[in-house]
Amino acid sequence: KATSTSKMTENGVFSRDKVLTIDTMNPTVKNVEYAVRGPIVQRAMQIEKELREGVKKPFTEVIKANIGDAHAMGQQPITFFRQVLALCSYPELLNENMFPEDAKNRARRILQACGGGSVGAYSASQGIDCVRQDVARYIERRDGGVPCDPDNVYLTTGASDGIVTMLKLLVCGEGASRTGVMISIPQYPLYSAALAELGAVQINYYLNEEKCWSMDLSELESSLAEARKHCNPKALCIINPGNPTGQVQSRQCIEDVIRFAAKERLFLMADEVYQDNVYAEGCQFHSFKKVLFELGPEYSDNVELASFHSTSKCYMGECGFRGGYMEVINMDAEVQAQLSKLVSVRLCPPVPGQALMDLVVNSPQPGEPSHITFMKERTATLSLLAEKAKLTEQILNTVPGITCNPVQGAMYSFPNISLPEKSIKEAKAPDMFYCMKLLEETGICLVPGSGFGQKDGTYHFRMTILPPTDKLKILLAKVKEFHQKFTQQYS
Amino acid sequence: KATSTSKMTENGVFSRDKVLTIDTMNPTVKNVEYAVRGPIVQRAMQIEKELREGVKKPFTEVIKANIGDAHAMGQQPITFFRQVLALCSYPELLNENMFPEDAKNRARRILQACGGGSVGAYSASQGIDCVRQDVARYIERRDGGVPCDPDNVYLTTGASDGIVTMLKLLVCGEGASRTGVMISIPQYPLYSAALAELGAVQINYYLNEEKCWSMDLSELESSLAEARKHCNPKALCIINPGNPTGQVQSRQCIEDVIRFAAKERLFLMADEVYQDNVYAEGCQFHSFKKVLFELGPEYSDNVELASFHSTSKCYMGECGFRGGYMEVINMDAEVQAQLSKLVSVRLCPPVPGQALMDLVVNSPQPGEPSHITFMKERTATLSLLAEKAKLTEQILNTVPGITCNPVQGAMYSFPNISLPEKSIKEAKAPDMFYCMKLLEETGICLVPGSGFGQKDGTYHFRMTILPPTDKLKILLAKVKEFHQKFTQQYS
Ligand SMILES: Cc1ncc(COP(=O)(O)O)c(C=O)c1O
Ligand SMILES: Cc1ncc(COP(=O)(O)O)c(C=O)c1O
Repeated sequence: KATSTSKMTENGVFSRDKVLTIDTMNPTVKNVEYAVRGPIVQRAMQIEKELREGVKKPFTEVIKANIGDAHAMGQQPITFFRQVLALCSYPELLNENMFPEDAKNRARRILQACGGGSVGAYSASQGIDCVRQDVARYIERRDGGVPCDPDNVYLTTGASDGIVTMLKLLVCGEGASRTGVMISIPQYPLYSAALAELGAVQINYYLNEEKCWSMDLSELESSLAEARKHCNPKALCIINPGNPTGQVQSRQCIEDVIRFAAKERLFLMADEVYQDNVYAEGCQFHSFKKVLFELGPEYSDNVELASFHSTSKCYMGECGFRGGYMEVINMDAEVQAQLSKLVSVRLCPPVPGQALMDLVVNSPQPGEPSHITFMKERTATLSLLAEKAKLTEQILNTVPGITCNPVQGAMYSFPNISLPEKSIKEAKAPDMFYCMKLLEETGICLVPGSGFGQKDGTYHFRMTILPPTDKLKILLAKVKEFHQKFTQQYS
Repeated sequence: KATSTSKMTENGVFSRDKVLTIDTMNPTVKNVEYAVRGPIVQRAMQIEKELREGVKKPFTEVIKANIGDAHAMGQQPITFFRQVLALCSYPELLNENMFPEDAKNRARRILQACGGGSVGAYSASQGIDCVRQDVARYIERRDGGVPCDPDNVYLTTGASDGIVTMLKLLVCGEGASRTGVMISIPQYPLYSAALAELGAVQINYYLNEEKCWSMDLSELESSLAEARKHCNPKALCIINPGNPTGQVQSRQCIEDVIRFAAKERLFLMADEVYQDNVYAEGCQFHSFKKVLFELGPEYSDNVELASFHSTSKCYMGECGFRGGYMEVINMDAEVQAQLSKLVSVRLCPPVPGQALMDLVVNSPQPGEPSHITFMKERTATLSLLAEKAKLTEQILNTVPGITCNPVQGAMYSFPNISLPEKSIKEAKAPDMFYCMKLLEETGICLVPGSGFGQKDGTYHFRMTILPPTDKLKILLAKVKEFHQKFTQQYS
């Protein structure tokens, strides 16, 4: 397709065809989609600009509930974490009296582990040694003593980086032997984007909306059987607590999934970035690793598992630092050596993000000067999120035509919206049409369900529960009003 | 190759074959090599551990000159930068009297541009708006007024991230239409690693060691002609000032390269992370963009160029923050939309790294309270590097069998070492053998030339000029002694 012609333009200058065009570029990149920052969000940013420039709208501000970005929605950072980060950035502050001793101690410990005592040095590619050790001890505490080897912990540039790296290791083959990776639908679109870019086969398994977005073993089985006809399924990804669906998996469900993965020889990838975000009565976070070990050596010695965590979510919501880790279990030694080599090419994850990850897994302990404030801030944030989860579910369920599962965990609600026939016929992407209209008329920015995947003929939107309570109430009231108007208009 | 057998182990537990093995993993990952953190460096870390544990060695410390990591080698961070970063991390400090007003102003400006006023919020995927504007103004000043559109600036996670992203866009095709990318030999091994991972064809062009590692047009031409027989060459990468070779390209040379790229329809990638690291008399940094625009509209309206910068090098040496940017010029609009989409999948570059990049391009100005200290620190660091560049060249050239080009810029020397016949016959990789022996006998950690590429039958090592002057002198004296001993031993 690329031709090498050049032509004279009006002003007498030769203009050549580009080397890099949409036709000559990497085709797998073209297949990538990422709705969380898609057209709706771009339009929202434009509208914000228009408002600033004085353009009249039926609303005075855009309320964004499109992305799980807690600080952007006004959540305050944990004081202790930021004190230590300031100390690490400018160690002169260690000489000041204004910081508590435990903050200073943490900063000294991190700085000592950095080359030249500076967070400006590259760290080891796998992450700073003492941070990986702290992560390992955190995992052991979290999982009731199940051992964790720091050599299996890799610090990452956000969980995104770990997930993409792991998928990269897994993918190979062409045609019917192309690697297939099972992902839940609805999914967090990083997965579909990474699989598209890697040229792997995306194998969808649907979560059961009727049963509070839980995983069905029979669905896993039939989706796998179907996929085996045209690709080589190698891995199964789970997000728990769920994004965009907000469910928290039961221990039984996790057990079933592990047995399934063992039987079907699938590499497990457990995305557990919302591990502290559990709100619903009777729900509890169970890590895949813990359950794996409780199933005994037949499983714990065999099933390959990578699990992911991040500084971006939970009670800290520190997205901008791009901190995270992954732990790999039962990974083949030669493959792990390849993983270590692969991560070395990018040199290292951001050191401030590593420091922050360290603070998350090594937070102030009872008796330390910052403990009380830390616990107060942590609890306040998590309680507020729990309230907003409840509020969201309750108000949305008062709207005729909207059905909303309980937000058991994470930071999102993914309600089912019934759209009038006429709107479905008129629009190519009815939920996109709905969300765009909602944005233009009310200033509320949500993401259409199609960006995450949904059963054919069903429609949803994803909204975060992160706006401050007063704004969240406005948002929910406006959605209610809009939905009723929209339904009338297109009936 | 993957079979599904499982066998009973001694303790009565079923052990299955792994899903992910060296045979079933992504083959392109296996092809990746990255010598800067390869076996020599791993052995150096082991030796350090042994020394700490009291193992007796012919030396008491490992001196590392394997990686361009200034802070790890004792270089001090710029005070102003770290003050602003501390303020951004913990904005409470804005209320303290201990910080100069310009530092506070910079911090306020950055925080205002962050979601919720927090560096813990995700930024726009392309980077914070005001940082991209500051980058654009910096580029305009640097290039004598050549215009720069902030929309063409992408903040990145270190320059590494930008380079890999750009290569990812370029690569496609199979067999004889596979994308080829021209890289200098010796090269910075990020390039070969990324090309291996992407399955692209690496097209080598050799730098001219006799002419101080300059680029030869005839070499470019013949290497391209040869490559056209078996792949589709699409891009040409240049590192200026050079890593590992330390040369600074003349304006004439850059002009020639641009004309060559225009004529041969190649996308230019200019790695300019060492743009402030120019030491030699008569040498000066010329950006590819500036020269491109000076060649007139036939070039400046047509030639596609991506250039890269980083917080990791120059006088700041802030590697751990993973800050960087790339600017794209004459990129096809549709391709650029794809680029913007692609970077959104990873959400955003680390915000502290973006803040640091902002400070680099918007440093204290005359009249501002921090200006004098800033200039003092900057100049001191760059003068010291210039001294060490000179020292390295001079001492190495006193060693019979070592020939060292002047270190005109960057942070490295890449001397030619003549190895005795017997050592070449005995070792599979003679320069690796040499460096490993050097490490074991003297504790000095260098990287063999083979990690960067070199003409067949020639041998080199790369050493950074970063160790503190006293250590650098010890290092050079030890290399001298070792080289003489080694030559005797194997003659
Ligand atoms: C389920 C899930 N996984 C991974 C990520 C990536 O987070 P980060 O890269 O910021 O750690 C997110 C972000 O929203 C997420 O929701
Ligand atoms: C020539 C060159 N390009 C790019 C990089 C990558 O630097 P970073 O990713 O830290 O910005 C380096 C690092 O040494 C380099 O030498």
